[in-house]
Amino acid sequence: MRLLIALGGNAIKQAHEEGNTAEQFTNCRVTTRLIAEIVKKMGPDDRLAITHGNGPQAGNLLVQQEMGKEKIPAQTMDVVGAMTQGQIGYMLQQTLMNYLVDMGTTVPVCAVVNQVLVNKDDPEFFGDMASKPVGNFFTEEEAKQLKRDHPEYIVKKVKPNGEKTWRRTVPSPDPISNVEAEAIKRMVDAGIIVIASGGGGIPVMCDARGRYAGVEAVIDKDLAGERFAEVINADEFLVLTDVEVVKLDYGKPEEKPIFKMTLAEAKKYSDQGHFLAGSMGPKVRACIRFLEWGGKRAVITSLDKAVAALAGETGTHIVRNEVE
Amino acid sequence: MRLLIALGGNAIKQAHEEGNTAEQFTNCRVTTRLIAEIVKKMGPDDRLAITHGNGPQAGNLLVQQEMGKEKIPAQTMDVVGAMTQGQIGYMLQQTLMNYLVDMGTTVPVCAVVNQVLVNKDDPEFFGDMASKPVGNFFTEEEAKQLKRDHPEYIVKKVKPNGEKTWRRTVPSPDPISNVEAEAIKRMVDAGIIVIASGGGGIPVMCDARGRYAGVEAVIDKDLAGERFAEVINADEFLVLTDVEVVKLDYGKPEEKPIFKMTLAEAKKYSDQGHFLAGSMGPKVRACIRFLEWGGKRAVITSLDKAVAALAGETGTHIVRNEVE
Repeated sequence: MRLLIALGGNAIKQAHEEGNTAEQFTNCRVTTRLIAEIVKKMGPDDRLAITHGNGPQAGNLLVQQEMGKEKIPAQTMDVVGAMTQGQIGYMLQQTLMNYLVDMGTTVPVCAVVNQVLVNKDDPEFFGDMASKPVGNFFTEEEAKQLKRDHPEYIVKKVKPNGEKTWRRTVPSPDPISNVEAEAIKRMVDAGIIVIASGGGGIPVMCDARGRYAGVEAVIDKDLAGERFAEVINADEFLVLTDVEVVKLDYGKPEEKPIFKMTLAEAKKYSDQGHFLAGSMGPKVRACIRFLEWGGKRAVITSLDKAVAALAGETGTHIVRNEVE
Repeated sequence: MRLLIALGGNAIKQAHEEGNTAEQFTNCRVTTRLIAEIVKKMGPDDRLAITHGNGPQAGNLLVQQEMGKEKIPAQTMDVVGAMTQGQIGYMLQQTLMNYLVDMGTTVPVCAVVNQVLVNKDDPEFFGDMASKPVGNFFTEEEAKQLKRDHPEYIVKKVKPNGEKTWRRTVPSPDPISNVEAEAIKRMVDAGIIVIASGGGGIPVMCDARGRYAGVEAVIDKDLAGERFAEVINADEFLVLTDVEVVKLDYGKPEEKPIFKMTLAEAKKYSDQGHFLAGSMGPKVRACIRFLEWGGKRAVITSLDKAVAALAGETGTHIVRNEVE
């Protein structure tokens, strides 16, 4: 059995926290203790790989870069992505390794720097189609100044009311493939628990000669995680977020939890608009892709229910056919 | 043949540059083009691994963290190290991969997040023995304020004259071993060009139960690189810096270049104080350790002479015995 776990933002930083090192390590410990429980149940031929978001960490780094810009040049978004892969990869790797040591397990854990290919013709790159807000909130006046300082930035009003309602917005293109696929595949085959595709991967484009270059974008981490799941030939794809089960008619009086859906049902509900864009939408889409590619089961649940959900006790399970 | 290349700071950022993304990619391209030349000559059983410094990048990030501290908490030094491993690993990985693609080579390249173990009893951790200055320069008044804000910091006067002569100084403990040794060994055996131990590795200590935790320190990248060379069972250790050959009596009228020394000679010269601490000293010490461990040849030269030095045409070669 090969399993890919996609960790949500709350696995590393809680929304109410400022994001200091101690807080983040505490959250990572909660997360990796649960992952260690999963490793404990693995046989010698089973494989596990992990991916994670980076929203709060990239956001904090962008603010630091902005505040330090008089002295130090800000790095581009692809480099910011790479830096957060190092940061979060380190915290997950160290804390998971410590739990494995406690358990007497010697499975190696290793986080890698990982690029993900996007298409230069992706609609997100055109006009002001970019959809992913990043970094600081600004007043209208500050937003205008930001645009004067960086004419290439797309700055959008992202909240209807309030003092600071504007934010820099970057493209969120669809991930095409995992650039380090061959290295990752060999690592997983060699028995290493690989942490990769962090923050949706470092977004890169490819020219006609096959050479990669970074782009100013942010890739959805669940959609990129699905590409990672393909690379390691995963049977199961576990998407961890802040709700135990997916809801139909979310936020409406008739809202109802869904514990199991077939691929066909998931596509139907998705087409009917049951899942919010930028929230449950891309998670369900990633699961649909995973099953269409050939995966056996996709599960969406909350971090604390991960072990129970894998055992079939809770969570939203998506399978190819009813009989499975 | 298994080769470990240790890249100096100038491989990624020139001293006169501010360190923006474009400059750093340009430098990385110069570096990885040379490395690609080396890969070109490798047979199917040969292996290559790479390590690099992170001084300018960590310094810049520390300044950004300091300037952003009113809004965003600064991360600890171990996390800063991890972030620069992501940053530099990404730039080296992408540019090397692009040259390999141009050459029609499909050897996978992968940078990893990598911890290096240090000893809690290392003298660098005691009193104000810490020897590695990091981040901003401060006036005496600013230095006093920094110390009030962070009582745990060691702040030292690092230049005799000038307005801003004080800097935060952190321990630079000796590296004991590479924590991700098993994962890295499997990766290299699987034919991957691994970039690891960046910036000397993320410094960690180990408690009595075998659990790791980060420490506020910076490890010398050549000494840590030597531990990495042991992990991959390297035959050769190539240390790239800004001089073509090591000098005896450096800076004196009788200064003379040295093209070849035996291990015994290197130890003798080292004991005689020919090599400066914080400069050529740790590089020669790393080479001595490599040969004592069992390595065949260590070479110190400049980046642009890397290929010629490996061919025996220049550089300072250190071998175990005269006959080799």
